[in-house]
Amino acid sequence: MSIDTTPLSSTPRTSLRRHRERGMSDREALYEVLDAGLVCHLGVVADGMPVVLPTAYGRDGDTLYLHGSSANGAFGAAAGQQVCVTVTHMDGIVAARSVFSHSMNYRSAVVFGTATLVRDEDERWQALRLITDHLIPGRWAAARQPTKKEMAATSVLSVPLTEASVKIRTGMPADEPEDYDLDVWAGVLPMSLTWGQPEADPLLRAEIPVPAHIRDRASG
Amino acid sequence: MSIDTTPLSSTPRTSLRRHRERGMSDREALYEVLDAGLVCHLGVVADGMPVVLPTAYGRDGDTLYLHGSSANGAFGAAAGQQVCVTVTHMDGIVAARSVFSHSMNYRSAVVFGTATLVRDEDERWQALRLITDHLIPGRWAAARQPTKKEMAATSVLSVPLTEASVKIRTGMPADEPEDYDLDVWAGVLPMSLTWGQPEADPLLRAEIPVPAHIRDRASG
Repeated sequence: MSIDTTPLSSTPRTSLRRHRERGMSDREALYEVLDAGLVCHLGVVADGMPVVLPTAYGRDGDTLYLHGSSANGAFGAAAGQQVCVTVTHMDGIVAARSVFSHSMNYRSAVVFGTATLVRDEDERWQALRLITDHLIPGRWAAARQPTKKEMAATSVLSVPLTEASVKIRTGMPADEPEDYDLDVWAGVLPMSLTWGQPEADPLLRAEIPVPAHIRDRASG
Repeated sequence: MSIDTTPLSSTPRTSLRRHRERGMSDREALYEVLDAGLVCHLGVVADGMPVVLPTAYGRDGDTLYLHGSSANGAFGAAAGQQVCVTVTHMDGIVAARSVFSHSMNYRSAVVFGTATLVRDEDERWQALRLITDHLIPGRWAAARQPTKKEMAATSVLSVPLTEASVKIRTGMPADEPEDYDLDVWAGVLPMSLTWGQPEADPLLRAEIPVPAHIRDRASG
């Protein structure tokens, strides 16, 4: 829980203070940021060059699971290699009195580790269940389970949560003292990822209602 | 506009079809995805290892600008190096009848290029204006401009938009034909990044109203 990452603004004002103030450990904060996310950005080095791919993920204790198509080159390139997995929540734009002090309110987790291609079929199954239920809790049990052919078409990577950096910025601008006298509005423009009403597939058989796990996801 | 990137699901069903159907060129689609984003994920190789950092950006024609603290090692490591800049919009979870066909509706742009540390002071100034106005259009002119010291504390990178991959998935699940008979709800759970009401800094002088550019940003 150490490596320093760049901030979202030019003024590094990120810290672990907030969750420490809330009595959370760094690891609890890491779990919270990861569990609240839907998609991570996976960074791999392929042919010596960085590639950043958005992808779904799930967490089992101190292991992160990612999945991708077995046919995907960049995803395959990650196996056995050092990767970086970043999850970012944008909570608001911090409009300061000076341009320089502008920032974002955000929560981010940057995980560094060696990705392992999971080969054990039970662990692969469990990982796909976690990834599916991470997107929509309860979905795995409600949907048709994977066939052997579908399992073969899917690669699963695991990344241990041993080295990570968690950053959380909240609250108002931190302007220079002399700037507080300026005639410039300052504050926060909050933002959040919000859910709309579930849209049924037009091909869905009419007698199938919206199930509880879909309603629950869309309401939270 | 070529390199293939991993999809958000295990079934690569992304395509450039949608914007082609809408009569857009790949480049127009790239601009649209980039301009609609607030934060990118910058991938760099530092000491041989990938690092993925969320950061603000702006676009000027076919140039992407990023900024960071001059003191930030990972950001500095990008100068002169191949980088990957990814912007992802999550538009919904695609709940299919089978676990395997689950997907996301999303728009992503993955840009590959060599990052150049911008040294020309006029271009640096212009880039910071673009980045600031990308977050909140009109904000640069409304806030206190950077001092020389603040400019010196800020690094600006430029990345040319010569090689990029744009992917857009929209619409309903694409299930296996035999799965349409299953008793499984299928459809889309739409999501979007939405703005809350601007929150004034408690230290703001009471006579300063919410300006139009802040209201405009929060309303769209």
